Amino acid sequence: MDEQKSLGSGDQVHDIRIVNGITVKDLVGQFRNSGFQTHNIGVAADILGEMAENNATIFLSFTSNIAASGIRGIIIDLVKRKKVHALVVSSGALDEDISRSEHAYLQGTFEADDAQLGRQGINRMGNIFVPNECYEQLEENITAILSKIHSAMKELSVTELLKQIGLHMASENSFVYHAARNGIPIFCPGITDGAIGLQLAFFQQTHPDFEVNELKSAIEALDFAMVAKKKGKVGAIILGGGIAKHHTIIANILSGGLDYAIYINSSSPYHGSLSGATTSEAKSWGKIGENAKDVTIYGDASVVFPLLVASTDYFFE
Amino acid sequence: MDEQKSLGSGDQVHDIRIVNGITVKDLVGQFRNSGFQTHNIGVAADILGEMAENNATIFLSFTSNIAASGIRGIIIDLVKRKKVHALVVSSGALDEDISRSEHAYLQGTFEADDAQLGRQGINRMGNIFVPNECYEQLEENITAILSKIHSAMKELSVTELLKQIGLHMASENSFVYHAARNGIPIFCPGITDGAIGLQLAFFQQTHPDFEVNELKSAIEALDFAMVAKKKGKVGAIILGGGIAKHHTIIANILSGGLDYAIYINSSSPYHGSLSGATTSEAKSWGKIGENAKDVTIYGDASVVFPLLVASTDYFFE
Amino acid sequence: MDEQKSLGSGDQVHDIRIVNGITVKDLVGQFRNSGFQTHNIGVAADILGEMAENNATIFLSFTSNIAASGIRGIIIDLVKRKKVHALVVSSGALDEDISRSEHAYLQGTFEADDAQLGRQGINRMGNIFVPNECYEQLEENITAILSKIHSAMKELSVTELLKQIGLHMASENSFVYHAARNGIPIFCPGITDGAIGLQLAFFQQTHPDFEVNELKSAIEALDFAMVAKKKGKVGAIILGGGIAKHHTIIANILSGGLDYAIYINSSSPYHGSLSGATTSEAKSWGKIGENAKDVTIYGDASVVFPLLVASTDYFFE
Amino acid sequence: MDEQKSLGSGDQVHDIRIVNGITVKDLVGQFRNSGFQTHNIGVAADILGEMAENNATIFLSFTSNIAASGIRGIIIDLVKRKKVHALVVSSGALDEDISRSEHAYLQGTFEADDAQLGRQGINRMGNIFVPNECYEQLEENITAILSKIHSAMKELSVTELLKQIGLHMASENSFVYHAARNGIPIFCPGITDGAIGLQLAFFQQTHPDFEVNELKSAIEALDFAMVAKKKGKVGAIILGGGIAKHHTIIANILSGGLDYAIYINSSSPYHGSLSGATTSEAKSWGKIGENAKDVTIYGDASVVFPLLVASTDYFFE
Repeated sequence: MDEQKSLGSGDQVHDIRIVNGITVKDLVGQFRNSGFQTHNIGVAADILGEMAENNATIFLSFTSNIAASGIRGIIIDLVKRKKVHALVVSSGALDEDISRSEHAYLQGTFEADDAQLGRQGINRMGNIFVPNECYEQLEENITAILSKIHSAMKELSVTELLKQIGLHMASENSFVYHAARNGIPIFCPGITDGAIGLQLAFFQQTHPDFEVNELKSAIEALDFAMVAKKKGKVGAIILGGGIAKHHTIIANILSGGLDYAIYINSSSPYHGSLSGATTSEAKSWGKIGENAKDVTIYGDASVVFPLLVASTDYFFE
Repeated sequence: MDEQKSLGSGDQVHDIRIVNGITVKDLVGQFRNSGFQTHNIGVAADILGEMAENNATIFLSFTSNIAASGIRGIIIDLVKRKKVHALVVSSGALDEDISRSEHAYLQGTFEADDAQLGRQGINRMGNIFVPNECYEQLEENITAILSKIHSAMKELSVTELLKQIGLHMASENSFVYHAARNGIPIFCPGITDGAIGLQLAFFQQTHPDFEVNELKSAIEALDFAMVAKKKGKVGAIILGGGIAKHHTIIANILSGGLDYAIYINSSSPYHGSLSGATTSEAKSWGKIGENAKDVTIYGDASVVFPLLVASTDYFFE
Repeated sequence: MDEQKSLGSGDQVHDIRIVNGITVKDLVGQFRNSGFQTHNIGVAADILGEMAENNATIFLSFTSNIAASGIRGIIIDLVKRKKVHALVVSSGALDEDISRSEHAYLQGTFEADDAQLGRQGINRMGNIFVPNECYEQLEENITAILSKIHSAMKELSVTELLKQIGLHMASENSFVYHAARNGIPIFCPGITDGAIGLQLAFFQQTHPDFEVNELKSAIEALDFAMVAKKKGKVGAIILGGGIAKHHTIIANILSGGLDYAIYINSSSPYHGSLSGATTSEAKSWGKIGENAKDVTIYGDASVVFPLLVASTDYFFE
Repeated sequence: MDEQKSLGSGDQVHDIRIVNGITVKDLVGQFRNSGFQTHNIGVAADILGEMAENNATIFLSFTSNIAASGIRGIIIDLVKRKKVHALVVSSGALDEDISRSEHAYLQGTFEADDAQLGRQGINRMGNIFVPNECYEQLEENITAILSKIHSAMKELSVTELLKQIGLHMASENSFVYHAARNGIPIFCPGITDGAIGLQLAFFQQTHPDFEVNELKSAIEALDFAMVAKKKGKVGAIILGGGIAKHHTIIANILSGGLDYAIYINSSSPYHGSLSGATTSEAKSWGKIGENAKDVTIYGDASVVFPLLVASTDYFFE
């Protein structure tokens, strides 16, 4: 910690003034010197602005719950308009995106009787309810798509497979769909840990010549980061934790670390989990560069990410 | 939990769409069916709307960190325009308000070297820095004000004392100042636990005829709630935890419990602390009415409260 | 942060070995170099050992939930055997102790239907259930005790009052009872914020000559810390947050700060709350001395405190 | 929630009594009726006892931080003595186990200067420090082992590969070593997301005939659960969150769900993450059986797991 950083900016804490019809951008602009996590949100908005100004390549990482929530709408829009350049996701995030491209999930409650829900064929994810038929339809659709892909290709990396799935999807209401068409790779380590992953495994049992290579995808992620670094700056926006978070930063380890990093976590750093790990910690590993601009926001990504997107001109250019 | 509540509304999860220049109100309007804590924020906005429609008496409760942050600006504005009707605060919240009415606090960092800060005369509160001179000036000002009050009155409840302090303040940049002028009582259990409280105690040592009656203030809080309940509905917005949170709900226990309650907590309910306790738990005690509209938002109050205020027409009428 | 501290001890992480019948002390001894919060627990055990060796005066601070839980048994025992020297508590902690001295609380569930519990006359505190009759009996007992005290004394500080209450209690099953007999002061800022506090207020309404002086209690806390510091080292064990936590450290601010401090928190430091504030932060304020031995343990105090007590020889001498 | 469960056991809260030299088992025995998370720990101990009595097949799931901490010692011991029957881990857990089989990690601090650590070749994981040479040695060792495996086998599932790695390891100080010899499968979805995973990918680039099949491993996990269910009851102890947690429960979805489940989480359920998801939620999905015995403990797994192991006779038989 250099002296200046340790002592802060010297800026005064400013009282926030809210007027009728205030825009998100105006409010977040006031957050910068308002203390606690509002401050960190303000810092993140500054970093996003600098990422945009420097034409940084942007990784966006997120987990299945994000894809099950309304935040997916923002992600679809950013992917459609090529405002982010690579997605790194957990397996479940693909399930939720593709499932929701055709079926609606429901707004439920955290306090539901889970045994009763189970009997009614409803799966609970926090306060979101997913009827069984969503997954049944997903499994059918994926199997049909795999058959088509398999008729043309026998071996693919996970990243190539996800592109093919996107190209074969019927509904535009999906980031997998738009990523495939916009040349935005989707990196998904741990593809087997979800509904699509299990269908893949079942498909392979009946089609032994069908090979999905995860090792190749890891190389593709490293190569993508390397190429991006040669072109300029590289940044990441990481919503939540888990394998998607770690894979985003490890992908950048061989190319000198991320130049910009924004984490939005609800986990604590004090139990040593990767989900709660800070951007600072990643600098010791070289996953984020020593001189990077970075911030860790402690909060619910589904609340904070919309505030950041709405505050950044770049996303609307 | 009645069946319907346990099964949720049946509403679909909607994807959020962000347009350039989106207002906070538009965004929060979309939160209602977006899942997780965005959902709870949307519910809170609905409850605030209903509170306003029914002309509810509104308690606003908060802790010292909130008063040290930019959120104080919003509170000053609401108090000035009589949009809330009683404040319930921890002792430190008064310190920060009165201190900041004349001196600026600084935006610092969570990672500062605290021993070094101490040697430099800077007190850290999360990522906010408070120079010693702020408190020195506060102690001087309070002692001067106490002298003036004492020349006219010898015994006061805490609530009466805080009104007198507000009336004697020089700077308008304060919720204590405006609350005093607008007939908005400030309830502060535990007044001794802060800088002003210690000055009060020191003042009494040299002025033994000066009596500050806390017991009377507890009765005043109960009476305020009782009168409010006779007039109509009663609601509370509770930012953070601690004694201010509990005092708000216990004040309403004899009059049948709050009709509306919004908690914004960063603590967990699973360790049994009052700071992490839910609105639901308060119903078992009768502190919140059995049929109240209520929601517990898990998040940073300094991020969430501005979103709620900016989304509620009532606050701008 | 001096260089050495920042770089750690250089000790190796040791794998834990558990044998059949392992004692808590043996296990906690292994925690010292096991990482994450086990490490911090090990550090706390070391600090407790040093406190004991140096005959430090020990403050023990806790909140109402702790007094409602099984941890109360440990506290009663420590107070009975004079192993701690001052208690600092929230108002509710007194309610629970005195209530439980005669009535049992029940082990419930976090997921109970709170409206139904309310109708059944059961108050929920996390997963502990408190039948209404516990509080009804408490109110009766306290009123009877206040009558006796009032017949002999008209003005008392809160600390003096709590001593008198302890002396008048019928049941030994209480830390208030033993503290009174063992010369261990109980500091309770915010006494009005609970059942006993409200009974006090009601009692004063019918007995206007009965005065309870909170300001005097604040001076008593400062004086206690000052005298302790003159005699030697001063330490604090702080379970949970809220006003009890803050009052413990502010009581030591005029005497140069605590020499030893152990916090056990479940709150996060990143939202600026006092409940989540670290021992490090307190050093910037001088509430903990610059050269103090201190540690913040992130965890549930009701799990961690028993481990620490069982690991410290001093508590059994 | 059936009525009885919602109303709790009716057992009284018991005060804990600690005697000198108390065993962990005695203390945890008292936790059962002590409230909050002590209660949940007591419930978990009961469930473990029942698992053992019914000869349940036991999955143990954990993350990389657990393998980097002293808890690894307990896991090695359980695997060596065949007290658990399948491991489900994140990729990093393998890195830390194999690396630590030959090199020590260091006990550091959370507050280190990460940029400086990076320059010194030290990687930080919470308050554990990992010198670069640990990973360098790991990469060398793994590559040498892969060469040996490759000379004999060209295609393996991840689970088969991990068995082969274990069989080729030189040091006994490892759960991978003992799992291989004891017929305990290690399921690791997302193998590519770590140091070993990257070495695998690099190895494949130079040895294109070397195939690691992750899809097959998913089938193996499902089959393992299915066979276990046919033999009797199936339980899981899940330390922390992430992909290892989810893979454990999804592996049991086709065989009717787990019969016993113990989660130890530091994440909150209120943000919809899988890491914070409760055992109750898993029942709606059928990943845990409707009538399972289950508990979610909110706490640091590295503190709680040793308490549970030391309290369960089965682990010492």
